Amino acid sequence: MGIVIQNIERPAAEIVAGLGQCGVATVHEAQGRSGLMRPFMRPIYAGVRIAGPAVTVSVAPGDNWMIHVAVEQCREGDIVVVAPTSPCEDGYFGELLARSLQARGVGGLVIEAGVRDVRDLAEIGFPVWSKAIFAQGTVKETIGSVNVPIVCAGASVNPGDVIVADDDGVCVVPHGKAEEALKNSRAREAREAEVRKRLLAGELGLDIYDMRGKLAAKGLKYV
Amino acid sequence: MGIVIQNIERPAAEIVAGLGQCGVATVHEAQGRSGLMRPFMRPIYAGVRIAGPAVTVSVAPGDNWMIHVAVEQCREGDIVVVAPTSPCEDGYFGELLARSLQARGVGGLVIEAGVRDVRDLAEIGFPVWSKAIFAQGTVKETIGSVNVPIVCAGASVNPGDVIVADDDGVCVVPHGKAEEALKNSRAREAREAEVRKRLLAGELGLDIYDMRGKLAAKGLKYV
Amino acid sequence: MGIVIQNIERPAAEIVAGLGQCGVATVHEAQGRSGLMRPFMRPIYAGVRIAGPAVTVSVAPGDNWMIHVAVEQCREGDIVVVAPTSPCEDGYFGELLARSLQARGVGGLVIEAGVRDVRDLAEIGFPVWSKAIFAQGTVKETIGSVNVPIVCAGASVNPGDVIVADDDGVCVVPHGKAEEALKNSRAREAREAEVRKRLLAGELGLDIYDMRGKLAAKGLKYV
Amino acid sequence: MGIVIQNIERPAAEIVAGLGQCGVATVHEAQGRSGLMRPFMRPIYAGVRIAGPAVTVSVAPGDNWMIHVAVEQCREGDIVVVAPTSPCEDGYFGELLARSLQARGVGGLVIEAGVRDVRDLAEIGFPVWSKAIFAQGTVKETIGSVNVPIVCAGASVNPGDVIVADDDGVCVVPHGKAEEALKNSRAREAREAEVRKRLLAGELGLDIYDMRGKLAAKGLKYV
Amino acid sequence: MGIVIQNIERPAAEIVAGLGQCGVATVHEAQGRSGLMRPFMRPIYAGVRIAGPAVTVSVAPGDNWMIHVAVEQCREGDIVVVAPTSPCEDGYFGELLARSLQARGVGGLVIEAGVRDVRDLAEIGFPVWSKAIFAQGTVKETIGSVNVPIVCAGASVNPGDVIVADDDGVCVVPHGKAEEALKNSRAREAREAEVRKRLLAGELGLDIYDMRGKLAAKGLKYV
Amino acid sequence: MGIVIQNIERPAAEIVAGLGQCGVATVHEAQGRSGLMRPFMRPIYAGVRIAGPAVTVSVAPGDNWMIHVAVEQCREGDIVVVAPTSPCEDGYFGELLARSLQARGVGGLVIEAGVRDVRDLAEIGFPVWSKAIFAQGTVKETIGSVNVPIVCAGASVNPGDVIVADDDGVCVVPHGKAEEALKNSRAREAREAEVRKRLLAGELGLDIYDMRGKLAAKGLKYV
Repeated sequence: MGIVIQNIERPAAEIVAGLGQCGVATVHEAQGRSGLMRPFMRPIYAGVRIAGPAVTVSVAPGDNWMIHVAVEQCREGDIVVVAPTSPCEDGYFGELLARSLQARGVGGLVIEAGVRDVRDLAEIGFPVWSKAIFAQGTVKETIGSVNVPIVCAGASVNPGDVIVADDDGVCVVPHGKAEEALKNSRAREAREAEVRKRLLAGELGLDIYDMRGKLAAKGLKYV
Repeated sequence: MGIVIQNIERPAAEIVAGLGQCGVATVHEAQGRSGLMRPFMRPIYAGVRIAGPAVTVSVAPGDNWMIHVAVEQCREGDIVVVAPTSPCEDGYFGELLARSLQARGVGGLVIEAGVRDVRDLAEIGFPVWSKAIFAQGTVKETIGSVNVPIVCAGASVNPGDVIVADDDGVCVVPHGKAEEALKNSRAREAREAEVRKRLLAGELGLDIYDMRGKLAAKGLKYV
Repeated sequence: MGIVIQNIERPAAEIVAGLGQCGVATVHEAQGRSGLMRPFMRPIYAGVRIAGPAVTVSVAPGDNWMIHVAVEQCREGDIVVVAPTSPCEDGYFGELLARSLQARGVGGLVIEAGVRDVRDLAEIGFPVWSKAIFAQGTVKETIGSVNVPIVCAGASVNPGDVIVADDDGVCVVPHGKAEEALKNSRAREAREAEVRKRLLAGELGLDIYDMRGKLAAKGLKYV
Repeated sequence: MGIVIQNIERPAAEIVAGLGQCGVATVHEAQGRSGLMRPFMRPIYAGVRIAGPAVTVSVAPGDNWMIHVAVEQCREGDIVVVAPTSPCEDGYFGELLARSLQARGVGGLVIEAGVRDVRDLAEIGFPVWSKAIFAQGTVKETIGSVNVPIVCAGASVNPGDVIVADDDGVCVVPHGKAEEALKNSRAREAREAEVRKRLLAGELGLDIYDMRGKLAAKGLKYV
Repeated sequence: MGIVIQNIERPAAEIVAGLGQCGVATVHEAQGRSGLMRPFMRPIYAGVRIAGPAVTVSVAPGDNWMIHVAVEQCREGDIVVVAPTSPCEDGYFGELLARSLQARGVGGLVIEAGVRDVRDLAEIGFPVWSKAIFAQGTVKETIGSVNVPIVCAGASVNPGDVIVADDDGVCVVPHGKAEEALKNSRAREAREAEVRKRLLAGELGLDIYDMRGKLAAKGLKYV
Repeated sequence: MGIVIQNIERPAAEIVAGLGQCGVATVHEAQGRSGLMRPFMRPIYAGVRIAGPAVTVSVAPGDNWMIHVAVEQCREGDIVVVAPTSPCEDGYFGELLARSLQARGVGGLVIEAGVRDVRDLAEIGFPVWSKAIFAQGTVKETIGSVNVPIVCAGASVNPGDVIVADDDGVCVVPHGKAEEALKNSRAREAREAEVRKRLLAGELGLDIYDMRGKLAAKGLKYV
């Protein structure tokens, strides 16, 4: 409680960028179906895909003080990930904080709580994935921590982990597995491109994936 | 458990199309306010209205195998309706399955669970009404059934029932009542057109529907 | 139960308009962080900001009769605020009632329940903040009251209170505090404009708000 | 809408009684894992297990009129099953209605809504499974139906189907499958008694069910 | 914000006691079905019925400082009613605060948030109705108010209003209407005693309430 | 995916026992208010307090195979902690598995999903904290892992961490911090015993904790 870790390791920029190109569904699959946040985490506006190293923030309920502290720890391309110590939907974040993060090149915010000024955030192009949209203000009374391990929306996040977020939700790639996850993601994309071609040509998944025998063995009856 | 019914009766195409023109709110009213799915069933993108005969799919939680089986049973204009045997928000469906259904002319998907690749689905124009958007992958281990009676989001659905879906939600019209529902829907539209004209002219519903006497009889006081 | 108050006091139009320019987040802050409705109250389409005096309606679950009664009590610029006496998500309101309210110049609807015909409502430009989108029809059997004090989505609303609503949600400004709330809102906007300039120039909130000493005093450690 | 079916077929009393001895978890398994209501259906007091033929009631939200109508249709041992046409938690049922049902020998109530007077219901020993406990009163204005097919808490219920309810929830056995379900339930109980003996003796499920080979084949690694 | 009202008017003790004897369901009905809190407010242990004047407390999320302030304002028989300014389930209250309130003769706590030490609270016999049971601790950093009007679980509460709470939930009787509510409650109990006798004798509500004609007029069909 | 760690470190038995005596609320406070699971984790019967080292289990939705695998890894006094890879309320666990765990001396189960046979579990005295009670059966098709790090109900759990559970919920004490947490818990109990004495004597928390000056400094007004 009450710690700011100033130096965190970030993965190589080209790996982060690659994961961002692949997107949440592919990356989640490519790393063994792990790291996904709960489905209540939704983008405040559609059509954006981002990726970047996590700067983690642990905050008290109804208290956004530590987000101000976290700003200073951010670098170009980072993504701020905020989790309250108990469930809270208050509006921790709005347009002014977004301006401050944009001034440092931060790519977006992921927060298991509420945000406000959402029309302004859309207009200035600062993407946010949150649990709620709620104007309720917060205080600055209780300290928390920056760049410690947190659990956000059911997923473990360590500082420097790669966050990938798009219209499907938010996925966390552990720092040490980012390279492998990218390789697997690319391989998965290649396989899917093959399958896509065959499906567009009218072939059935039943045949492409050779499922008919297994279904019969399980006892499926056609009547 | 483990049955695929291959031949189902579908209502006449012009009745289905007519119901699609009327939309969910009108059709639901016209058949005595029945058949509506729960309000948590939301379109993944706005502005679409579809109608078509249901191909029903009963699936295990976290297992989308039977959707692959269902593809083969679909014809031009059908709508696939999926219900898990217990509550589940996993991402049963994504862009590849949508391609496969589009190749067969399927009009859309209704699923009391999650879907993923939602940006792709919007781009290729495959409409989905779901309980959640969630990238979580599923397995192919447990068989279920295709074209058996199911309960989806609180509504009974039999194969061949007409599904109507738009921005207001999803409504089920039993096959045998489709013609009558269309007739009643058209009559309702005509009545509403009359009322609309009078409302636009500034008349009050209180007078159009002759409510003042009934309100007084119930004891309403103006002060 | 069963009362319609016909004469309510409304705040001056320029105060209402001013509050509308400031928006929900600012007004909520400017009146001491009170009056906000719960975050489940969402606009049916994005990008609108409205303000107006409340015409309040207390309705039975699944019964929209009193909304018809309320129409007659509305004036140009009013906002109708509806709360059921017990939780209900039925579709109390659709396009026809919207036409009727538009004919009287009503600015929008706030309802702790469901609405339908949402595509039509977007097309004719009638904004609604609701708990749900649900086509389920309602009856006209049980009387309620118009322009009595209600609790809507957790907020107390008296007739004539100013309702401010935008993409951040809905805020209630008590009639007697509207002028002060506007003054405070304007002052807050001025302060924020100052801060915005400095943040865009790269200054940190930590320094602008002079937080470093207080954080150290609370025991925050940088490592 | 607005129909009371007066003659329904009920399964043989000894089959109903047998299913009641087996309980929800066993019966649900024995009929292929179907017929279970959603887990939000909870008993208002613990420790009771009942079974009986369903008298079904479809009611409007906030309106308990049809429960009064249903009383007359009940016989010794029946279970009343109530579903509102849209989600509602109002208190449809209390001590007086329970007295009336007890006077006719009814075994209990299953309702996808709220009940009240729960302390009295416990004292007079009238078991209820409900979605909520809520004192909110209801009206008697809108008719519904008795002994028509309904969907209650996600399960299809036809009049005369066997309802089994205990601390694990509520399960529906279709009338025509009651005998087979009982036979399968008894067989399952016998198998479980065997397994129980071996488990109490310290044997592992891994060995009793011969799982080790299958786990290895799936790739499970011990480290 | 930040006010403690020290002198509040309390209703006569015998009226409060009378309402407590009648209980939540009866009192709620007797005052026109108003004043009921949402059904998520549940007792932490069953079998208690209390009534007393409300000492209201408005608290910040995750901050129980003002409950300590409120203790001093309590008198024998009061009930403390706590509402956070935004939704929060933290454990604001435990055994030590209960001891302090018991030392002043307070009858119980109603809180739209969480409590902890629930086994201890049951053992010392201090009844609580809450939204959650949650051990999460709170801070003492932000002031709120005591004995101001609040909204708790959807109900308006003014200091001195009578709170009635039992296994059915929590009901608020406005101070000025307490006497009338008691009179109506007693009358209702008398009427119900009459009906109970007839129901126990086997008469039907259909006949006692003379419903058959009205049902036929609405179009109910027996088949 | 698909790993069973067979040797885990467990904390000393007397430390575990000590933490169990202190209980969830005290331990959670004593370790800096961390490690608490979400408030939806409730005991299936009241009045039990347990503590023990965690054997962690990661399972697929609707698939309890790995719980059978986990049994073999359990020792006297362990607590099994189960988290599905996506949200699921199915009944993963019942009386037979409880018998098997009891035969090995396991102290209880913590599961972010459903359980069944709850009356039997109460009768044989096997305590469970779960998200739901649900009879829905599960399959044995997909492997998971035993004794890997998991997130359960929002809390990080590593194998060998101490689980403390009682009527207030479930708390996780990291293995390496168990001794310090116990020391702090004992100190906290001693401090609370002091305060309790003074409260019972009628002193106010306002004075015991010396709050009056701080409240005045924050601007609290008594009127």
